[in-house]
Amino acid sequence: MQNELEQYLHDHIPLSKAMKVSVVSVEENNVVLQAPLDPNINHRETVFGGSASALAILAAWSLLHTRLRRSGIDSRLVIQRNTMEYRKPIMGEFTARASLDDPDKWQQFLRMLSRKGKARVEVSSVLEYSGKEVGRLNGEFVAIEVYSA
Amino acid sequence: MQNELEQYLHDHIPLSKAMKVSVVSVEENNVVLQAPLDPNINHRETVFGGSASALAILAAWSLLHTRLRRSGIDSRLVIQRNTMEYRKPIMGEFTARASLDDPDKWQQFLRMLSRKGKARVEVSSVLEYSGKEVGRLNGEFVAIEVYSA
Repeated sequence: MQNELEQYLHDHIPLSKAMKVSVVSVEENNVVLQAPLDPNINHRETVFGGSASALAILAAWSLLHTRLRRSGIDSRLVIQRNTMEYRKPIMGEFTARASLDDPDKWQQFLRMLSRKGKARVEVSSVLEYSGKEVGRLNGEFVAIEVYSA
Repeated sequence: MQNELEQYLHDHIPLSKAMKVSVVSVEENNVVLQAPLDPNINHRETVFGGSASALAILAAWSLLHTRLRRSGIDSRLVIQRNTMEYRKPIMGEFTARASLDDPDKWQQFLRMLSRKGKARVEVSSVLEYSGKEVGRLNGEFVAIEVYSA
């Protein structure tokens, strides 16, 4: 599942390849992605905020994508908004761990998606560097069911 | 100024080069950056949200960087938080136009920076594709004065 997701990201979202994103783990309740400093560095030799945001968004999207696939639902995921907090400079390889804001709402989300063809869900991604939380993204996504012909 | 900024971004923030970011215009009150679809595409053949965010952050940072340099102030800029709204899918080359949320506060910002060595400022970046607004970032930055030895 890890290799499959990594291959999917590199094949379909070239920025993930440019950022050298790797998949650390894929579990039901969280997905962890990682990226090295070099391709994501800024003029201060710390991680560029745009790279930090992008890794957090990729982790959040990956969590929803893999959970929906496991539920056998073919859907299109669209990010609608996010907030991002940059708490500390990131000076090396960093990770983003995505989880649902409220896991208990997942069944309700799936019911809404199958009933209305569309449902909203909130995901958070925590950025870590050297064992410490250095940033956090809260994202709101909409899933739209795709009907096969 | 355009070429100089573009060179600076490509040299110091490799992600901007991977995204093929170019500088469209640099004026006192706004900076416009552009990026093509190809290196920023996602699995739906529209612009990846992480690329949209990154271009908006680069434009906001570039506006502050060029204005501060024009004021002769050597400072370090740190992004503290941002919100990002993704309003419409972006299906081709897109731009981010950054401007100050409240231009009248610039002098106050500079006074605070020189008095306290640190000041906060808010910048917005509007994303446009094909003449329409397709997204918006609101970012909060802190500038920290750098003292030369």
